[in-house]
Amino acid sequence: MISGTRFRFSKLKLGVLGLVGLGPVFLWAQTSSTDAPWFGAEVYIEPGQRAADIDTWFRRLKEANMEVTRIRLTEQYLRAPAGAWDFTLFDAAYRSAEKYGIKIYGNLSPSTGGSEVPRTEAQWQDIADYVKAVVTHFRQFKSCYGWVPVNEPGISRSPDEEFTRNAFRKWSEEQPPLGYHSHGYATFNFAEDRFLLDFNGWYLRKLVNEIRKYDPSGAIHVNPDAIFQKIAVCDLRSWTPFLTSLGGSAHASWHFGYFERAQYAVAVAANCEIIRSGAGRLPWMITELQGGNNIFSGTAPMCPTAEEISQWLWVTLGTGGKGAIFWCLNPRRAGYESGEWALLNFQNEPSDRLRMAARVAQTVKRDAALWANAVPVESGISILYTRESLWIEGKLTPPSIGFEGRAPGAGIKSALAYFEALGEMGLQARLQAIDDTDFGQASYAGRTIILSHQISLPSRSWKGLEAFVAKGGKLIVDGLTGFYDENGFCVMGDGFPLEKVFGGSLKEVQLIGNQFDVALLEPPLTLPAHLWRGTIQPTTAATIATTGANATAVRNHFGKGEVIWIPSLVRLACRIKRDYRPLAELLTREINGASDTPFRFAAIQPGMLMKTLQSGASYLTVLINKGPEKATLSLKGEAAARTPTLLFADLGGGLTSGNISIGPEEAMVIQWK
Amino acid sequence: MISGTRFRFSKLKLGVLGLVGLGPVFLWAQTSSTDAPWFGAEVYIEPGQRAADIDTWFRRLKEANMEVTRIRLTEQYLRAPAGAWDFTLFDAAYRSAEKYGIKIYGNLSPSTGGSEVPRTEAQWQDIADYVKAVVTHFRQFKSCYGWVPVNEPGISRSPDEEFTRNAFRKWSEEQPPLGYHSHGYATFNFAEDRFLLDFNGWYLRKLVNEIRKYDPSGAIHVNPDAIFQKIAVCDLRSWTPFLTSLGGSAHASWHFGYFERAQYAVAVAANCEIIRSGAGRLPWMITELQGGNNIFSGTAPMCPTAEEISQWLWVTLGTGGKGAIFWCLNPRRAGYESGEWALLNFQNEPSDRLRMAARVAQTVKRDAALWANAVPVESGISILYTRESLWIEGKLTPPSIGFEGRAPGAGIKSALAYFEALGEMGLQARLQAIDDTDFGQASYAGRTIILSHQISLPSRSWKGLEAFVAKGGKLIVDGLTGFYDENGFCVMGDGFPLEKVFGGSLKEVQLIGNQFDVALLEPPLTLPAHLWRGTIQPTTAATIATTGANATAVRNHFGKGEVIWIPSLVRLACRIKRDYRPLAELLTREINGASDTPFRFAAIQPGMLMKTLQSGASYLTVLINKGPEKATLSLKGEAAARTPTLLFADLGGGLTSGNISIGPEEAMVIQWK
Amino acid sequence: MISGTRFRFSKLKLGVLGLVGLGPVFLWAQTSSTDAPWFGAEVYIEPGQRAADIDTWFRRLKEANMEVTRIRLTEQYLRAPAGAWDFTLFDAAYRSAEKYGIKIYGNLSPSTGGSEVPRTEAQWQDIADYVKAVVTHFRQFKSCYGWVPVNEPGISRSPDEEFTRNAFRKWSEEQPPLGYHSHGYATFNFAEDRFLLDFNGWYLRKLVNEIRKYDPSGAIHVNPDAIFQKIAVCDLRSWTPFLTSLGGSAHASWHFGYFERAQYAVAVAANCEIIRSGAGRLPWMITELQGGNNIFSGTAPMCPTAEEISQWLWVTLGTGGKGAIFWCLNPRRAGYESGEWALLNFQNEPSDRLRMAARVAQTVKRDAALWANAVPVESGISILYTRESLWIEGKLTPPSIGFEGRAPGAGIKSALAYFEALGEMGLQARLQAIDDTDFGQASYAGRTIILSHQISLPSRSWKGLEAFVAKGGKLIVDGLTGFYDENGFCVMGDGFPLEKVFGGSLKEVQLIGNQFDVALLEPPLTLPAHLWRGTIQPTTAATIATTGANATAVRNHFGKGEVIWIPSLVRLACRIKRDYRPLAELLTREINGASDTPFRFAAIQPGMLMKTLQSGASYLTVLINKGPEKATLSLKGEAAARTPTLLFADLGGGLTSGNISIGPEEAMVIQWK
Repeated sequence: MISGTRFRFSKLKLGVLGLVGLGPVFLWAQTSSTDAPWFGAEVYIEPGQRAADIDTWFRRLKEANMEVTRIRLTEQYLRAPAGAWDFTLFDAAYRSAEKYGIKIYGNLSPSTGGSEVPRTEAQWQDIADYVKAVVTHFRQFKSCYGWVPVNEPGISRSPDEEFTRNAFRKWSEEQPPLGYHSHGYATFNFAEDRFLLDFNGWYLRKLVNEIRKYDPSGAIHVNPDAIFQKIAVCDLRSWTPFLTSLGGSAHASWHFGYFERAQYAVAVAANCEIIRSGAGRLPWMITELQGGNNIFSGTAPMCPTAEEISQWLWVTLGTGGKGAIFWCLNPRRAGYESGEWALLNFQNEPSDRLRMAARVAQTVKRDAALWANAVPVESGISILYTRESLWIEGKLTPPSIGFEGRAPGAGIKSALAYFEALGEMGLQARLQAIDDTDFGQASYAGRTIILSHQISLPSRSWKGLEAFVAKGGKLIVDGLTGFYDENGFCVMGDGFPLEKVFGGSLKEVQLIGNQFDVALLEPPLTLPAHLWRGTIQPTTAATIATTGANATAVRNHFGKGEVIWIPSLVRLACRIKRDYRPLAELLTREINGASDTPFRFAAIQPGMLMKTLQSGASYLTVLINKGPEKATLSLKGEAAARTPTLLFADLGGGLTSGNISIGPEEAMVIQWK
Repeated sequence: MISGTRFRFSKLKLGVLGLVGLGPVFLWAQTSSTDAPWFGAEVYIEPGQRAADIDTWFRRLKEANMEVTRIRLTEQYLRAPAGAWDFTLFDAAYRSAEKYGIKIYGNLSPSTGGSEVPRTEAQWQDIADYVKAVVTHFRQFKSCYGWVPVNEPGISRSPDEEFTRNAFRKWSEEQPPLGYHSHGYATFNFAEDRFLLDFNGWYLRKLVNEIRKYDPSGAIHVNPDAIFQKIAVCDLRSWTPFLTSLGGSAHASWHFGYFERAQYAVAVAANCEIIRSGAGRLPWMITELQGGNNIFSGTAPMCPTAEEISQWLWVTLGTGGKGAIFWCLNPRRAGYESGEWALLNFQNEPSDRLRMAARVAQTVKRDAALWANAVPVESGISILYTRESLWIEGKLTPPSIGFEGRAPGAGIKSALAYFEALGEMGLQARLQAIDDTDFGQASYAGRTIILSHQISLPSRSWKGLEAFVAKGGKLIVDGLTGFYDENGFCVMGDGFPLEKVFGGSLKEVQLIGNQFDVALLEPPLTLPAHLWRGTIQPTTAATIATTGANATAVRNHFGKGEVIWIPSLVRLACRIKRDYRPLAELLTREINGASDTPFRFAAIQPGMLMKTLQSGASYLTVLINKGPEKATLSLKGEAAARTPTLLFADLGGGLTSGNISIGPEEAMVIQWK
Repeated sequence: MISGTRFRFSKLKLGVLGLVGLGPVFLWAQTSSTDAPWFGAEVYIEPGQRAADIDTWFRRLKEANMEVTRIRLTEQYLRAPAGAWDFTLFDAAYRSAEKYGIKIYGNLSPSTGGSEVPRTEAQWQDIADYVKAVVTHFRQFKSCYGWVPVNEPGISRSPDEEFTRNAFRKWSEEQPPLGYHSHGYATFNFAEDRFLLDFNGWYLRKLVNEIRKYDPSGAIHVNPDAIFQKIAVCDLRSWTPFLTSLGGSAHASWHFGYFERAQYAVAVAANCEIIRSGAGRLPWMITELQGGNNIFSGTAPMCPTAEEISQWLWVTLGTGGKGAIFWCLNPRRAGYESGEWALLNFQNEPSDRLRMAARVAQTVKRDAALWANAVPVESGISILYTRESLWIEGKLTPPSIGFEGRAPGAGIKSALAYFEALGEMGLQARLQAIDDTDFGQASYAGRTIILSHQISLPSRSWKGLEAFVAKGGKLIVDGLTGFYDENGFCVMGDGFPLEKVFGGSLKEVQLIGNQFDVALLEPPLTLPAHLWRGTIQPTTAATIATTGANATAVRNHFGKGEVIWIPSLVRLACRIKRDYRPLAELLTREINGASDTPFRFAAIQPGMLMKTLQSGASYLTVLINKGPEKATLSLKGEAAARTPTLLFADLGGGLTSGNISIGPEEAMVIQWK
């Protein structure tokens, strides 16, 4: 971890409460990485419902092999007329849960008048009172598994109100002087971004502290949403000391705006990788997965198919997730989303989506020990993002975009392009914050880091990247990666801090247009590129692509490692064109240890995705076919030496004499003994 | 009328003033349904004009067979420097009107600083003073026909200002408790929408009360504009007690945004039907019809052709309208719209548009008695809309639309799709608020109600709809009709109140995509559908279309009537594709009494529109051809048994041996004796 | 000059300071029209830079044949901690400039918190203090050439703040009564627009007055940007009494939104013509010309090619400009635009763009006397714009545009269409404000004025236009030119003030659609037209095009001159279609004295541009080929009688036996002795 200075704010009360290590005192599942995955769906409770309805819903969960639910403990629904509490409605839910053996995460939902965080200190007191009443009451139920302190945490802007103003003032006073000043240049100030990152963790812990006053041992779980944007303001790893597990909301219709529908499976995979990285050693799952139809909700409205439900669940498990809870079981009937999102139909019967989820759950239950011990096979490939790249994108968003490459999100989309390409190669990849990356190991042989159009590399990461390469790592760099430091200062030019590592420095960046080519030499490989073409002044590096007399890509050997630097947006171009073959070819050549991976596709499989787990002596491969046609394929690596067992295939796919046959939209799970 | 509770607010002073029934004391035309239609054009009066100019304009009206005008009595143009009144300019207009026998509607236009309603109680006093001065003065002229209390009434939002705040407070205090509470669910609050609906009528009546203090007998007329949106906030029928006639502004360039130019004739027809329904037993006309060119005004700028002028006038008469006043005769020369909209050219000579209007007026004058007694032939088909559908669309407007079906206006556009399809079949249809519909008759045999994607059916309408079907009516239901009650509560699921009537309940709604098919069985008919596909759990109904094992359309016999229920957006899909043939085929099969209509097309005529009137022993058919080519067609029903006389054809169309020949853009009027 | 009443405000202190005529006391170049052109690039100075870097940059200027730079004297970078001044950083720049013989324009940049003009009177005092400190200090350097009082002057809206409120109040009090009142009609009030026009000049002079207190003789230069919009609020000619030269920022990526990339050369030409006209007898140059790449800046981001650099420089010289300064030499490293815009690469070595600029500068230096005395050959053609047209476009901007012809900018784009067409004919044209036009000459034989869709002709221009035609001028009028007076009053109709001159008056304007034709008769010529078609009621004019029975174009002989009037948007239609051949054909026929121009293309050359200068007995022609292919062409006029010498061609173009051969993107300069 190179981010030692990053978490000042959240250290304040950590020692006092001793939250770290509370995990082991739990008795239930889902608190360690060797628990079996479980499944569930949120039961939406609102006044007007009858206890019999509620009981039916819990029965439906049970029938669908589900073991967990989440319930929103909406304060206004818990209030009796004169300000007293009336728990009747929700008691019915907790009791039915007991009856059917379902565990409940109580999702705290105090009445804040629509604000995500308190507006005033007085409002904070009201929230604390609510937490006391609710936690004290519901923890008595055996079905009470624990708490979600707030739904979808993480504010993206700091409102100019008493509570946040006070927090900002206090935070500012506690900030030590910055050690790095961009050589005295008059840079941008990202104090608000840094504050939000700390504040979002600080406020979460403040809520957890309240819960812990009344329930010292219940599970604590949170579900950050819209993860491809919220990584800018959420430092997930810093939350882990006061959580028992991490989660996320991953709704296709709200959160996957960077993807087309055919990419939603890989979007779930990428979402999972970010949560997985944020969780560190904690178990994690998807807390909200879209269960049903959109009417007026959603920015890209849809109704998932049963096949998509299967894909999303298997991808979650294939990434190491410990399960998923759908949003939601029964449709709300009043207010926003009424009649939407549900797994049950209007007769309270299971939809084909719920039947599919039940089938997946049943498959896992059948081999519970196998799944409990399954962990993702690491490929040694990490795609890193830097929060500062998102902050600078936000600060410099142009008055008129014109090109995708300079729209907000270009950096994370560029990183996702690699993730998608590796998926089509059947290779795993980490997708994580540079600050969550360990640069202190003794050797990085066989390890690859990809930095794709991460326009800012903060100064605190320079030494780490240098060490990574020096100790044998392979660094693949493209786009305008590292153009700015954390202050928006352009480090290109005199004093470029990574010149030794990269083997040269940037010469010029030129806007060429929406599409152009970067042609690698020996062996020739034409990579499509987008928007800007960077040229390089090599020092120690060898030129591997040129335009006229200028180098457009170089390879540099540094220490025991190597850097490939292509300062054009080749990944994003592949993504825009939806053709990852050139990129896959490049990765096949370049990635350290790619051939050591126990399972991978023999050739790139456009539209396919593979995840590999290891469980004891077995491997488990999850395959998803999002291409338009049935595919027949074979796997490289361990496949030939092992015996496959088909654990799951929902559209008739199968195994014959070493070949895998998988239909369009099919998800398939194979155990390799 | 099932809307007994709806008009509480406006009853307060009704008895005191005894406005109901004032109609019969008038001496002039246009106050009863047996007056002959008349025509006119607004003379725009502004300082700088000379009396001689004004006189010319009234002469031009006379020469064009026009009998009526409207004049905007702009307060700032009536004020002398020291706050005194100077009526000189407008006196010239009233005098010229007397000279040429033109009647004037004085359109009250007090200076409110741009506000549509008073901001303060004091400003209301200023308005009352203005009304007194103006009405007292101009009623002396013989040319003074009456008053338009305010131009284009109906505010769509309630400004947070003294006058409206007071009105809202008073209104809130007077509201009785709601009788229906969505079974105790925590629903949306539509108090502001309900208030606006009442307020717009209340304020109009308040203005009329002022006028009546000084002119107890002059005509009172209003012209709501943008009717396809304003129906959300205007309860036209509730205004009729204090009006002598109803009208509307129907400008293609401002108000027909839901239509393409080729549909403007049917747009006028739909606009007219809404006014006709709102007018109840009062006569009605189009108060503002676009007369000329747009430069900077309009959202879909245009200059009407002479043919369009003819089409719009004949469609108005064909719908039972008592005439039309164009906006405007002479172009304003200063301010907004200067040099725009006029029927006269810059030499004060008639444009081809004015010459066409004069020709239509002459045609009507020639057979004045015939037209005076003409009333639309009722087909028994009513397309109903519910205001609550518009309110809920407004409340739930999604953050990103994505599909036309979830954009505001989807409900009314879906209703319009039926209206257009019926027009191409040559069939009349009512287009009206469900609250203006009489559900208390003894029998509905031969009657059809269409509910197309009216997402809310208010609870007060359920019994009425049940009675309608029970007593022999045919109900055609599509889209998400009835998904919500008036509070945005989803009634689908347990306790669906129309289950008996519809013969089942909704199972699921799934977003499929922009276009898909619903295939009716026996006889097969493929209907294009849009966005959502609903499936049905039938109880008593018979399944008439399926997807997999699920019903996607049903037919239910209930009492003496029948319901066809297709919970997908088949109408809107036809509208998006601009092909109503599948819909017409469905309607041909299903509509009660379609074959009893005295005049209809032998086959669907894409791009055509027919309106039928009865006058004494004669029928009158108005035909409009908006298709690209000359059409030759015959009519079913009474045509063969009667003798046709061609009253009007502006592009050489004619009648030969039972066939009608009509050119593109042509309007044709035939009398059948 | 017919605009005698326009400049009241700015006369107040002019006499006192005697600014007029300060020009001649200067010793350096660039202060008279016979100075040789010079070239430069802004050195961007910011804290963090080392003196050695700064010295390198000035050396680079020198090496690139550059003689001038501009430096932004950013107050915050000149402030020491306790409010004292610290000039160290900028002193290094002035000293290096001395060392390499570079002249510096100091660009005043006081800290105003982002406001373009002071918010308060107190802030004005702070600005005055800053001016004193900076001017007093830096004028000591021999490299101090003079001052740019403010970057890119001219506010487009008047903020509601103390300083501007006071200025508006004072201005309002000083306004004499208007002499013309649109015949008493109640017109729009354009006081804010008129105020801004005066205020922008007044505030500039106020700044200059401060500078003059401490430096009575330094050069004073300003650089209005976004000129195609800012002409609405900047009366450039009125600024000339207190300037020594005029300039402008002309950045393709920010300012050429009305043009496609292939038109940027002609955009530079048009920009130059507006500055040239504004400059009157002062020398002028381009103060900011885009030197490098955009990353996040710009609304149409780009990186200029070396060829574009050459084109832009030659077009500037070909229009009579005295040089250009690029923005910028070295990239900023912090804040907005960091790493962007530069002519140097990150190694401080010249880019191909800088090498090209150096080559152009070298070419000019080689024949310094020739270029010093070169003046544009006047064609007698003036394309005039009126500010009131822009003001009225702004006031009447419709709620939904729908068509390019009613979007803001339609008038200036229409004028630009003529400019582009004449460029493709190889003809020069003035592009200037009607108020900068001299209507007082004795004869206008051989002179042509083009008024293209200038929707407002202010009343003060009517006599001038009448005189122009009466004395032999040719007036070409199209679109809705003259539809309004300066108050937005529609002058069409009774009393049209130009009826005698135009030989008729407008009959109607009708919106036809995006494209339609106006067919001129004898000889036939079909002109594409856009949006509105005007028809004319001729009095003395002859009809030259008709639609049905109506004239759509007329020719009128008045006095010794002639008017062609086509009240449809034929120019804009050509521009939308990017085909100027019909327009060129019309102009070939109609333009007075077109055949007298010494150099012009033998036929229209789509995509070409030619500028002609005279220098002593020589002519100089600048040719730019923006077409997709190599062109071989000959010139009409003097070409055959003279000996050509190729002074510059950057892509191998040449001269062979009277033919010119020029490649795509090539710029070529020929001297004709």
